[in-house]
Amino acid sequence: MEKALLLYSGGLDTSVMVRWIKEKMNMDVVTLTLDIGNSDLEEIKEKALKLGAIDAITLDVKKEFADNYISREIHANGLYGEYPLSTALARPLMAEKAVSVANENDIKFIAHGSTGKGNDQVRFEVSINALDNNIKVIAPVREWNMTRADELEYAKMNNIYVKSDGKYSVDENIWGRSIEGSSIENINEPVNDDAFEWVTPPQYCGSGEPVSIEFYKGLPSSLNGKSMDLLSIIKNLNIIAGRNGIGIINMIESRLIGLKSHEVYECPAASVILKAHKYLENLILNKNELSVKNYIDNFWSNMVYNGLWFDPSMEHMNQFEKSSNQYITGSVNLRLYRGNMILEGIESPYSLYDYNTINYETGVFDQGSSKGFIDIYKNETVRSNRVKKALTVIH
Amino acid sequence: MEKALLLYSGGLDTSVMVRWIKEKMNMDVVTLTLDIGNSDLEEIKEKALKLGAIDAITLDVKKEFADNYISREIHANGLYGEYPLSTALARPLMAEKAVSVANENDIKFIAHGSTGKGNDQVRFEVSINALDNNIKVIAPVREWNMTRADELEYAKMNNIYVKSDGKYSVDENIWGRSIEGSSIENINEPVNDDAFEWVTPPQYCGSGEPVSIEFYKGLPSSLNGKSMDLLSIIKNLNIIAGRNGIGIINMIESRLIGLKSHEVYECPAASVILKAHKYLENLILNKNELSVKNYIDNFWSNMVYNGLWFDPSMEHMNQFEKSSNQYITGSVNLRLYRGNMILEGIESPYSLYDYNTINYETGVFDQGSSKGFIDIYKNETVRSNRVKKALTVIH
Amino acid sequence: MEKALLLYSGGLDTSVMVRWIKEKMNMDVVTLTLDIGNSDLEEIKEKALKLGAIDAITLDVKKEFADNYISREIHANGLYGEYPLSTALARPLMAEKAVSVANENDIKFIAHGSTGKGNDQVRFEVSINALDNNIKVIAPVREWNMTRADELEYAKMNNIYVKSDGKYSVDENIWGRSIEGSSIENINEPVNDDAFEWVTPPQYCGSGEPVSIEFYKGLPSSLNGKSMDLLSIIKNLNIIAGRNGIGIINMIESRLIGLKSHEVYECPAASVILKAHKYLENLILNKNELSVKNYIDNFWSNMVYNGLWFDPSMEHMNQFEKSSNQYITGSVNLRLYRGNMILEGIESPYSLYDYNTINYETGVFDQGSSKGFIDIYKNETVRSNRVKKALTVIH
Amino acid sequence: MEKALLLYSGGLDTSVMVRWIKEKMNMDVVTLTLDIGNSDLEEIKEKALKLGAIDAITLDVKKEFADNYISREIHANGLYGEYPLSTALARPLMAEKAVSVANENDIKFIAHGSTGKGNDQVRFEVSINALDNNIKVIAPVREWNMTRADELEYAKMNNIYVKSDGKYSVDENIWGRSIEGSSIENINEPVNDDAFEWVTPPQYCGSGEPVSIEFYKGLPSSLNGKSMDLLSIIKNLNIIAGRNGIGIINMIESRLIGLKSHEVYECPAASVILKAHKYLENLILNKNELSVKNYIDNFWSNMVYNGLWFDPSMEHMNQFEKSSNQYITGSVNLRLYRGNMILEGIESPYSLYDYNTINYETGVFDQGSSKGFIDIYKNETVRSNRVKKALTVIH
Repeated sequence: MEKALLLYSGGLDTSVMVRWIKEKMNMDVVTLTLDIGNSDLEEIKEKALKLGAIDAITLDVKKEFADNYISREIHANGLYGEYPLSTALARPLMAEKAVSVANENDIKFIAHGSTGKGNDQVRFEVSINALDNNIKVIAPVREWNMTRADELEYAKMNNIYVKSDGKYSVDENIWGRSIEGSSIENINEPVNDDAFEWVTPPQYCGSGEPVSIEFYKGLPSSLNGKSMDLLSIIKNLNIIAGRNGIGIINMIESRLIGLKSHEVYECPAASVILKAHKYLENLILNKNELSVKNYIDNFWSNMVYNGLWFDPSMEHMNQFEKSSNQYITGSVNLRLYRGNMILEGIESPYSLYDYNTINYETGVFDQGSSKGFIDIYKNETVRSNRVKKALTVIH
Repeated sequence: MEKALLLYSGGLDTSVMVRWIKEKMNMDVVTLTLDIGNSDLEEIKEKALKLGAIDAITLDVKKEFADNYISREIHANGLYGEYPLSTALARPLMAEKAVSVANENDIKFIAHGSTGKGNDQVRFEVSINALDNNIKVIAPVREWNMTRADELEYAKMNNIYVKSDGKYSVDENIWGRSIEGSSIENINEPVNDDAFEWVTPPQYCGSGEPVSIEFYKGLPSSLNGKSMDLLSIIKNLNIIAGRNGIGIINMIESRLIGLKSHEVYECPAASVILKAHKYLENLILNKNELSVKNYIDNFWSNMVYNGLWFDPSMEHMNQFEKSSNQYITGSVNLRLYRGNMILEGIESPYSLYDYNTINYETGVFDQGSSKGFIDIYKNETVRSNRVKKALTVIH
Repeated sequence: MEKALLLYSGGLDTSVMVRWIKEKMNMDVVTLTLDIGNSDLEEIKEKALKLGAIDAITLDVKKEFADNYISREIHANGLYGEYPLSTALARPLMAEKAVSVANENDIKFIAHGSTGKGNDQVRFEVSINALDNNIKVIAPVREWNMTRADELEYAKMNNIYVKSDGKYSVDENIWGRSIEGSSIENINEPVNDDAFEWVTPPQYCGSGEPVSIEFYKGLPSSLNGKSMDLLSIIKNLNIIAGRNGIGIINMIESRLIGLKSHEVYECPAASVILKAHKYLENLILNKNELSVKNYIDNFWSNMVYNGLWFDPSMEHMNQFEKSSNQYITGSVNLRLYRGNMILEGIESPYSLYDYNTINYETGVFDQGSSKGFIDIYKNETVRSNRVKKALTVIH
Repeated sequence: MEKALLLYSGGLDTSVMVRWIKEKMNMDVVTLTLDIGNSDLEEIKEKALKLGAIDAITLDVKKEFADNYISREIHANGLYGEYPLSTALARPLMAEKAVSVANENDIKFIAHGSTGKGNDQVRFEVSINALDNNIKVIAPVREWNMTRADELEYAKMNNIYVKSDGKYSVDENIWGRSIEGSSIENINEPVNDDAFEWVTPPQYCGSGEPVSIEFYKGLPSSLNGKSMDLLSIIKNLNIIAGRNGIGIINMIESRLIGLKSHEVYECPAASVILKAHKYLENLILNKNELSVKNYIDNFWSNMVYNGLWFDPSMEHMNQFEKSSNQYITGSVNLRLYRGNMILEGIESPYSLYDYNTINYETGVFDQGSSKGFIDIYKNETVRSNRVKKALTVIH
């Protein structure tokens, strides 16, 4: 019998899928569960087997996620609006692992649990086929047209035990937690506090905490004076920043399939790291570098949001980003206080800030040059106004 | 005797200038004082005359500033980084008024108090000469090379009474307050609370307040249900947002003359209005509109930051902005709480958000189309990977 | 019986369609033929009726095409690579007319003859539904899966007389002629001379001709000293430029559906007008205007290529373009010689070129300012190198 | 006595300078002459010594120019408008060599012969100080305010023998020849044939020649079937393309100091190589790569035009360019005929062009997917029109 590799989270949709693929498509199901956040791999594995999977593979890929994916995003100040792309960033890693497991096990079909209305279906399918175009992708949710109630009914009928998923549709990994659905779809109302699990909403926070982050070549290398690998810094910052109200993002978003949606995110570590990294760049890179990097950063972020992580253009941009992060070394002190990240100090051996030049009292800058500068600088604007006004008078 | 029109704020620099221009340049001084924020025009006028100005002209231009300058910035989401360009936006208005007063009074010289290290000298001089290239600009601070101590000494010697300016170098108007100098120049230290006058730092704030802003064609038209003109909305919001910790901006900035500087701003009303306006745009404009508008908004903001308000390109961009704000009508509810602006509801007759399509339970969206979409969409990425991998294997 | 409005060109594909739609879809067919180039409307109408259309509507829309579509492209320097978008520009006009005729005749279906591999299907369908989303679009070629041989067989069987179409697949209108298919698909060979009908290949051209084009507010207003409307200028220039070898374009193109293709175009008038217009812009617009306009021009061109003429972003850009063409008034002399367009003179009342300033002998430009300018201008680059080098030495 | 290193071309300006610097600035002059094109180093050296230089250093840097400068431009499709940046590209190499010679000889001053009106002064000075900010730059032409007649008089008085320079102001190197001044400044007249030395104007050309260029990783590696280094390919192509009328560029240009100028260039090899390279890119890179590369190419070109070769942003962009040229391997056949470059064949192992998919008769492309694609693709445009129209009706 043909086999399908199912990206299995343990939730309602993919649990129903184990049975559904077997029944409707007449295929054996191998599940693949990846720990990118805090999944209980053992429990999920057991459940998969109980549901009838012929094999249940699990992998802890948190470190790979930090080192190969998140690190590149930090270099590129990856943001789609204010959203640090947490879910978008994990999809290509999941595709990468799925293709690799499928190839090792000679499986030709990969199934995922995304709907036909969202971005993730696109991210999965482009990524999987970019890595191996011989693999066929199966997206049952897109085809079965069951509502949530239908699914629950189907689960009951098939003895599929599912812990209640909660009212929201949630995706989470170490880089952030995405929340959508339910009352969040009523955009003329506030978001309920019960949507949040990682971040203490500002009104319930305590008296704040300072954090100090050191960067080496564009990546965090120590937190509050202690050297740690990136994964550990992220884990720690999720807790520290989370309890200080940092990282709630509330977006009206334009999905790549042409729908507007309302999405809420909790990205405490990501928010702090990206903020600190950007402060360092502003200190170390000159205006030309910042200008071109801003364009690349944006393009990079859009590509990731749009599911194009494995496009060849990404490698070209990653080379650019690596080069421009060569000197992003230094430390940033931020006070985290009820949703605010307050700069309390920044320094770098490569800082372009020059106290002696800028200081109003003792400055060594030759102000006389400014006159010549302005005389030339104004040419474009002054001349074009003069010419056009002269003619307007005559005409 | 030749006359100079001095842009006179009543502070130390420009007060010294009244005497200095007369003495060193042998010119009569007419002062021009503009109320763009909360200047006491009468007091400043008196002082100017006492210092020897032959005439002291004063104008309240707050409404003009709101209607002709700030309104265009709101349309263009004007931000340089996170800075709402408050000082940058007022300079061309000051130049406009100065040129107009100079022309009416047959004055050929305009003097300003900006140093040779900052952006404002450029903004004044480009703007003045763009409007009238026959006017000569005088920038005494750039030439006299006095330190602050020298100036105080000069003031004392010349019986110029100056109220202490405070330790910071400050510029303010209804759109924001810019603070630089003194301890702010020590970038490895926190900013002292005494830098802030408009915004209560978050830790001293109360329990928060909701605000509701209605927009009509891209501009605020009512606040908390009451119709008001833009100037009144700004004045009110400066107070409400200020007491809720909104609008402190802390930037490492790249001045247009090639120096890095550390600048702190307080822009409570600007922060709220720009945030609400952007939320509405995200709801009403489609992805194509947002993409091209994002570029124009950025270009527009850079031009204003760089002193090029009167460049002809601005008019072309303003036409674009006017058109793209045609449908930015609707209301935004934000909760202001200790530095946080929390979206609590948004609606617009032109909203592209469609509850019935997006809803996961009842959605009317044909998910089947997504498969065809992805099949085509992935072509670029899949093909280029396939071709390159195939060859890599062979080579 | 339900009615379908068929965009009918008189060629093989759409002729087969008249019969096919009736037979397979059981609908009455009304044909709509638009003269955008040099169609013989009478002959095509007769043919449609003979094939069984219940009505055959014809419209001469050449003037509308010039005044409402081409004019906007000239303002925007519309080019996709080197291709003046001739076919892409006519599709939305065809959609506009089709929707309007359909609405007047209470027809709910519009059929077009484009394949499923090209750009035109997208352009038609987006445009039609942007104008009226209640209309259903029928694209028989995409569904019937007939090859050309099948179609000829079908035509024979159904007594559909079709003049041989020639070996290439051709689309033409007054703004250009697109040629694809047949030997053009062999990209490792030269294009045969028999592909060209409008342009005499350079090796067969005569001794060249001068042309002089006057522009008023960004649009051609007279040719060789004679005032003419835009349509007449285009018609004349197609002949003059065509006989001088101007306007052959040979592109490796990236279709919007993700395929590379080889396309050949003949756009004599378009090439000359766009070249002359760009020369004038370079003379009249300043660097800031050129820089932002370059971005908008590109975005505009991509939108048109991608079938998005009726997207709301186009109106915003058109407002920008109108404003930036306000002063593009003047005349350009070009010598057309065997494929070359040689500038022989340019002038404008709004020219920013200033002989007296630029002239090396008598120049009035104050060269002294350049030193101050460079001192400031170099800051960004010099400082960042200095800082980084200093540290590199130490590290 | 202090020494100055003079970038010495052997022409009038720099010859006068040898004497002038000694006389007016009381410095010893060491000349540095670089062969980047076809300078007669021996003759120029002799002349320098005769004029009183205490030493005359000469270097042949043609190969370095090709390998370290031109190669990067080819990768980046370096063009400012249609100008291949030939002069702009050589200035940083000259600065690099001058700084290196100055350092070796313990010289603290470098003098160049550029005027205060052009771009080259900026390019020299930024580059020199970016490499060594302790060096002082001397620009006598900017200070002495001699006209050409004054210079000739001074030369005569000082027994400086100068071969007539010809009427134009010319700069040349292997990548191109720049011509300005004299009658070229009359922009309402044709350029005289006597301006051209490298390119035979089209009307005097012969019957054309085919060229075949092979590229390996983005750089030309063989010409007409013969492997050659880049320098040899350029030298050969200058002759071949030159005699076929290729490479005359006629620009209305916006100098970086805010003046419009009229410049004429002859760049035969550059025009052919850049055209062929771009054709290959269009064949090999996908739409995402082309889109982001287009931005970087433009930014790169502007930086070089604006004298910022040694800015750190260039290294980041060079990394991007290197990566995106990784697969630009293949061959391009062009027919050069009287100013036309006609594509006659292109191939690459990495080509994304797929005959079997694109072919209209046998195509394997699934046209059915297009319907789903368009259904999703049109969403943005259709929805925004629908919403806005609905409201417009109501309002």
